[in-house]
Amino acid sequence: MAEALRAEIAGSVAAVRSQLPLVLGISGTATQGLVADGLLAAGARPMLTATPDESPTLASAARALLVNVGSLASDARASAVPTARAAAAHGIPWVLDPAAIGLAPVRTPLAAELLALGPDAVRGNASEVLTLHLGSEAGQSGRGADSTVGPDTAVDSARDLAVAQGCIVAVSGQVDAITDGDVLVRVANGHPWLAQVSGTGCLLGALTAAHLGVRTGPGAARVSPFGAVVAATALLTVAAERAVASAKGPGSFRIGLLDALNAVSADEVATRVRLTWG
Amino acid sequence: MAEALRAEIAGSVAAVRSQLPLVLGISGTATQGLVADGLLAAGARPMLTATPDESPTLASAARALLVNVGSLASDARASAVPTARAAAAHGIPWVLDPAAIGLAPVRTPLAAELLALGPDAVRGNASEVLTLHLGSEAGQSGRGADSTVGPDTAVDSARDLAVAQGCIVAVSGQVDAITDGDVLVRVANGHPWLAQVSGTGCLLGALTAAHLGVRTGPGAARVSPFGAVVAATALLTVAAERAVASAKGPGSFRIGLLDALNAVSADEVATRVRLTWG
Amino acid sequence: MAEALRAEIAGSVAAVRSQLPLVLGISGTATQGLVADGLLAAGARPMLTATPDESPTLASAARALLVNVGSLASDARASAVPTARAAAAHGIPWVLDPAAIGLAPVRTPLAAELLALGPDAVRGNASEVLTLHLGSEAGQSGRGADSTVGPDTAVDSARDLAVAQGCIVAVSGQVDAITDGDVLVRVANGHPWLAQVSGTGCLLGALTAAHLGVRTGPGAARVSPFGAVVAATALLTVAAERAVASAKGPGSFRIGLLDALNAVSADEVATRVRLTWG
Repeated sequence: MAEALRAEIAGSVAAVRSQLPLVLGISGTATQGLVADGLLAAGARPMLTATPDESPTLASAARALLVNVGSLASDARASAVPTARAAAAHGIPWVLDPAAIGLAPVRTPLAAELLALGPDAVRGNASEVLTLHLGSEAGQSGRGADSTVGPDTAVDSARDLAVAQGCIVAVSGQVDAITDGDVLVRVANGHPWLAQVSGTGCLLGALTAAHLGVRTGPGAARVSPFGAVVAATALLTVAAERAVASAKGPGSFRIGLLDALNAVSADEVATRVRLTWG
Repeated sequence: MAEALRAEIAGSVAAVRSQLPLVLGISGTATQGLVADGLLAAGARPMLTATPDESPTLASAARALLVNVGSLASDARASAVPTARAAAAHGIPWVLDPAAIGLAPVRTPLAAELLALGPDAVRGNASEVLTLHLGSEAGQSGRGADSTVGPDTAVDSARDLAVAQGCIVAVSGQVDAITDGDVLVRVANGHPWLAQVSGTGCLLGALTAAHLGVRTGPGAARVSPFGAVVAATALLTVAAERAVASAKGPGSFRIGLLDALNAVSADEVATRVRLTWG
Repeated sequence: MAEALRAEIAGSVAAVRSQLPLVLGISGTATQGLVADGLLAAGARPMLTATPDESPTLASAARALLVNVGSLASDARASAVPTARAAAAHGIPWVLDPAAIGLAPVRTPLAAELLALGPDAVRGNASEVLTLHLGSEAGQSGRGADSTVGPDTAVDSARDLAVAQGCIVAVSGQVDAITDGDVLVRVANGHPWLAQVSGTGCLLGALTAAHLGVRTGPGAARVSPFGAVVAATALLTVAAERAVASAKGPGSFRIGLLDALNAVSADEVATRVRLTWG
């Protein structure tokens, strides 16, 4: 099982680099810089735009879509649902990132509405996944984009969401958990500094979209949706491990992370990722 | 006096790190990346959102609020006043940053309207503080976020504003001046490179909010509002001094600044800060 | 001819540093951080704001204007045309950057409308310049801000556009081409990593505006509009060459680029730039 998953990870990382997938992102303004640079470093091509009259059309030209409700400018709020609908209608895979839902009275119901449209994957921290599954009180969200509960707390919610929605659910934390509702894999390469740089969660959502976008087409490896989501998490966290080695703090870690996303080989990601099942 | 203020500075820097305060920020899009990363590096938790239907609710869950009129997207314009009102109603301290007022026909009257709502602190450069006090002609603003006059020019305006509004006023520059209307302290650790990186002024406003947000609660030191504002300025400028030592230009200085905000100890800030009175 | 152009390049780079021109930018949110920091590093002063009620007024106080249709938030869409009109009415030079036009149903006609208002320069990649000249099918745009055709493909379109609109047209790529409709110069200092960092194209548009903004005033050298546009391209690409030498990947390259924009001398730019004619 581990062998097969590692092969999927290597294949997916390589496929993003060979296919240069265009990823359309509706995403918070504060973190767009890291999301765009991180996608480029991993081999993808970002198009971060939320113009309501334009995003649905652009979705059909992209290989994947990210809908992140962070910041939630009026443009993003207006374009999220029609763009997700357009992606679904064209068979473009899309990722829902329910960033900072919980106390927020607009993005919390919006995330629920988006979930009902059938994302291919959901990426959130434990608070966000709990809230998406059980409602605002369960998530106890209160620290912006940070989770106030550990990732394990949300594992049952992640499984239930995955089964109910037929999607992959990734719970981010120092140890990440990814499930398709049946299998659950943990990735233990995360580092606390990832939480000290604004936008690494958003970037993981974007990388997840990129990996879901290259499962077909020239250069594609045989990768399942589950394998693609695990590959995105493995890539980011293995790159983070590399970056930590030479960083002096969160500023230089951010820069080293971008360098490492570009430099790490597909085989290195597949070899260094620490996987556990169950 | 110096001894007591240095103790407040050390206590405030330590309190931000132990309390991890959530800071809600309505702030310009161009500088959100630095503001978010700088808050994280200093120990705070950023939530930079200006969704008009959401920000007032979020203010009541935050420990502090920053309202910066830079960029001034339509969302920010619509949410600034109701969010400041919500913060005031819930006793959440908030900071007004009148970024780039002067020639700007929307943000100049908006800053005046916000000032009347009673911010706990105002953070601006000399041009901005002059304009806020005396009107557009006095400030002679004409270089975007840069001041066209030195910080000393605005000291009288800062005192008058502080007395009239019952708030702390911080005038940024190579030497920063902070007053509660009675006492005035200068902090002489500033470096010209701070003006070569976009958003350091916005970040100072955000750090000021974070420091005002941890005067109560577990881990709080006994810090006056004046001490908290001085602490934010001391933290940023002492970190800048550290960063200058190893920087090769404004790009690496920006990165080193984030590393230093994370690495500098509370005692180092209190010891290295160069304070003068009057 | 080469000697005279190199003198113009040196003079223009020096003039930006001595005049500190305020550049008003309507530009995409994802890349505003790099645009602002890059303008500062080169000596200019950024004001990136798209408030519809404010931008036209601010244009008259700036030395130059950039209108970039990337991201295209609703604010930017609303303010682009009136702000360009205001700049033109006040004799403020302005640059049109038709970022990511092609498939995009709003920004493509908007770019055509802006072109008709008479920009002093157009800066785009080959896809964008082809699309601006011949329509969406010609540009075959489909990778966001990346070009899907090489810069030479667009040279005929660039010449035609320059003649028809009486402006300078710069086609970005690994080798850049700049024409006034008569003379065409290629700048061969570009590096592939420029395309691995989000916003370098936007930054080139902004630097182009800064250089067009300092052709008059104290400290100005005698520089033609053509020379100013070539100077902006030379500055960015020579700085990129410097940055590549010490970079370990796209993250550290971005930082080194900002350091180099600040550190490179006007003479070094004029000496190192690789120019060919025709």
